[in-house]
Amino acid sequence: MGYSQIDLHIGEGIATLTLNRPEKMNAFTRTMMDEIIDAMDRTDADDSVRAVIFTGAGDRAFCAGADLTPDDGRAVFSDSTPVEDLSDPRVRDGGGLLTLRLFQSKKPLISACNGAAVGVGVTMQLPMDIRLASDNARYGFVFARRGIVPEACSSWFLPKIVGINQALEWCMTGRIFGAEEALKGGLVRSVHAPGELIDAARGLAREIADNTSAVSVAMTRAMLWRIPSGAHPMEAHKVDSRAIYRLSKGADAKEGVQSFLEKRPPAFPLRVSSDMPDFYPWWGEEPPFA
Amino acid sequence: MGYSQIDLHIGEGIATLTLNRPEKMNAFTRTMMDEIIDAMDRTDADDSVRAVIFTGAGDRAFCAGADLTPDDGRAVFSDSTPVEDLSDPRVRDGGGLLTLRLFQSKKPLISACNGAAVGVGVTMQLPMDIRLASDNARYGFVFARRGIVPEACSSWFLPKIVGINQALEWCMTGRIFGAEEALKGGLVRSVHAPGELIDAARGLAREIADNTSAVSVAMTRAMLWRIPSGAHPMEAHKVDSRAIYRLSKGADAKEGVQSFLEKRPPAFPLRVSSDMPDFYPWWGEEPPFA
Amino acid sequence: MGYSQIDLHIGEGIATLTLNRPEKMNAFTRTMMDEIIDAMDRTDADDSVRAVIFTGAGDRAFCAGADLTPDDGRAVFSDSTPVEDLSDPRVRDGGGLLTLRLFQSKKPLISACNGAAVGVGVTMQLPMDIRLASDNARYGFVFARRGIVPEACSSWFLPKIVGINQALEWCMTGRIFGAEEALKGGLVRSVHAPGELIDAARGLAREIADNTSAVSVAMTRAMLWRIPSGAHPMEAHKVDSRAIYRLSKGADAKEGVQSFLEKRPPAFPLRVSSDMPDFYPWWGEEPPFA
Repeated sequence: MGYSQIDLHIGEGIATLTLNRPEKMNAFTRTMMDEIIDAMDRTDADDSVRAVIFTGAGDRAFCAGADLTPDDGRAVFSDSTPVEDLSDPRVRDGGGLLTLRLFQSKKPLISACNGAAVGVGVTMQLPMDIRLASDNARYGFVFARRGIVPEACSSWFLPKIVGINQALEWCMTGRIFGAEEALKGGLVRSVHAPGELIDAARGLAREIADNTSAVSVAMTRAMLWRIPSGAHPMEAHKVDSRAIYRLSKGADAKEGVQSFLEKRPPAFPLRVSSDMPDFYPWWGEEPPFA
Repeated sequence: MGYSQIDLHIGEGIATLTLNRPEKMNAFTRTMMDEIIDAMDRTDADDSVRAVIFTGAGDRAFCAGADLTPDDGRAVFSDSTPVEDLSDPRVRDGGGLLTLRLFQSKKPLISACNGAAVGVGVTMQLPMDIRLASDNARYGFVFARRGIVPEACSSWFLPKIVGINQALEWCMTGRIFGAEEALKGGLVRSVHAPGELIDAARGLAREIADNTSAVSVAMTRAMLWRIPSGAHPMEAHKVDSRAIYRLSKGADAKEGVQSFLEKRPPAFPLRVSSDMPDFYPWWGEEPPFA
Repeated sequence: MGYSQIDLHIGEGIATLTLNRPEKMNAFTRTMMDEIIDAMDRTDADDSVRAVIFTGAGDRAFCAGADLTPDDGRAVFSDSTPVEDLSDPRVRDGGGLLTLRLFQSKKPLISACNGAAVGVGVTMQLPMDIRLASDNARYGFVFARRGIVPEACSSWFLPKIVGINQALEWCMTGRIFGAEEALKGGLVRSVHAPGELIDAARGLAREIADNTSAVSVAMTRAMLWRIPSGAHPMEAHKVDSRAIYRLSKGADAKEGVQSFLEKRPPAFPLRVSSDMPDFYPWWGEEPPFA
């Protein structure tokens, strides 16, 4: 599809996005960032895609972190042009530009972490919905060892995923740790032999693709990530009341009940590209440095 | 007590609320919703009740989900009258009307899940404080398989309870899963043989009833669920400072210290119906569609 | 250092703060509170301190709770002077004054819980970043058994740490529980033989001190605890973009990369006392009873 640092394959309802610089342990660059964001635009727009699996080329790394060599004249973390005003758009962190785009995905994101995932190599996995590891995966939130801080919105994502104390221990020691510590700490749901990792990820993608409404899943993803968890359940009631009201009268609900009663696989007619409820999106995105 | 779809038994300080349509696997209706809400008004008002246990009649189901047959002319999820304006009160989700009422309970809620708990059968358990399962329990957040979305404020409750990624996996696959997966994923605290489930729930209710101040527990329940977790601990300091100031000078604190020093069971005099601190409730409830 | 109820030892980059009233099971008083807060001012100001370990003197208790005898004329929980207006500053809970100060620490806090930790003895540990227990540790959120409520902002900290349901069960039963239940419930990261507890805590402190930038760790601690977790990851992007921009051009980032490439231990030059980024602190503290 015309990418130079990633590969995107779409088939049987599943997109597989491979970080593809194996000679560099799939180190992250601004080009790679642009290509992943472009790929998300494609998977969101393509109604055939029901889930996206992320993995790394080769057998050593998912992504070994940021490539410290400026790429195409652009540093990874932020523009290299000196700016005084920290509200200048050029200050925005590249890892965050990526994870904020992954956060917006309309399709489920599944990571199949096949080796080293260090720095942005692990923080880019945090907005994904389901994370799997091979038993040779290893992780590191190494920022404090490099004199910087957790980036890519990981100070928001990581405590939400593994709890505040595990997040603090990993980020304040900066240690490298293996798949078992990742599993015990709640960073990944399951650990697999390297040869079985992609099949396990595909199994989960199939479970979604074969059984569920794409509109329901896109709504569900947005609701679970976006409804403010800090305050009152009324925030959910406002959204789910409207969603149940609209969707329960729609074609997918009819097919959902019908296929259930007839004990056959469902064939949901609605499409994410055209059939989201009229109040979607119900949120507004705040500009970053307002 | 005049209910047709539930049974409410109160004795020895414990209320047991049984969903009672065993021939329909205790499927949820608007009538059942009204009756549970009425029962909550009774258990809140009855100072003898120190905890409420929820279970299902029969040995097959806790609650198999929403009864799709309109009940008394009213659909479960929302009023069947077509309305254009999504801020119309008739749009409000029935599951949410129930879980928002459970959220407000002044008494601890304990679920003893004795079989199938699917759709609203599991989401109604999420505002409960302690969840137990029998080993034949099975759960399903099946909404995406029916062409709708997670309801009953479950997009708020479920990530809070089991974490964002487990919530996403269950809701995006819509799979049915057993008691062991529920235990591993953090949905239930413990799994029991069917014949021992109710006794285990009663043991926890007794532990509360025999040892604690009812006013303290009602305050504690409100504080833990309601103090905004998303921002700053100062939000807790504002409430707990006032509560400690008032309660530490009260009759229950005196009895708490006295019974502790005398190594005897406490007999707390204060009552939830009349003796909550003067600043309770400290919150205001927002109207749903303001 | 002139303390009467605690001991503070600083050496090899680690401060060890010992609650030191072993004849009273290290029971908490207003004097102890003042001394811990003073010690935090010292460890924050002393650039040699890279982590603070908390433990209790003797082999029986970390801290058995609040000393109910008024100390120096001052009650533990709040001023004993009767005040009518609950917004009076004298109403403020002493446990909260302590935990809010621990929350603000610029250095990592590690608890080595060596015995009984009841009431404020456990709630004071909740703002700490890493919690370890000896196998004879025991815990109790006993407030409901004493006719009061969870204090010291624990209604904010505890659900964040162990989840809402475990927090509710512990606080609504008020039970005393051991190190294994604490480990299973997520209150502590690991359990150790009594003779190995302090060494385990020191090992973690060393891992931080020997490998990381102090400025990075102070920033990381503030980011993970303070960035609002309830809403949108954009909140993190605003802070981490600025932090990456400033720190990636700084002396610690240079040393972090250099020492990594040269495979030698880092010697980070920046100091917390003078070299935090220009936008730190990025938050404002709200007055408690505004």
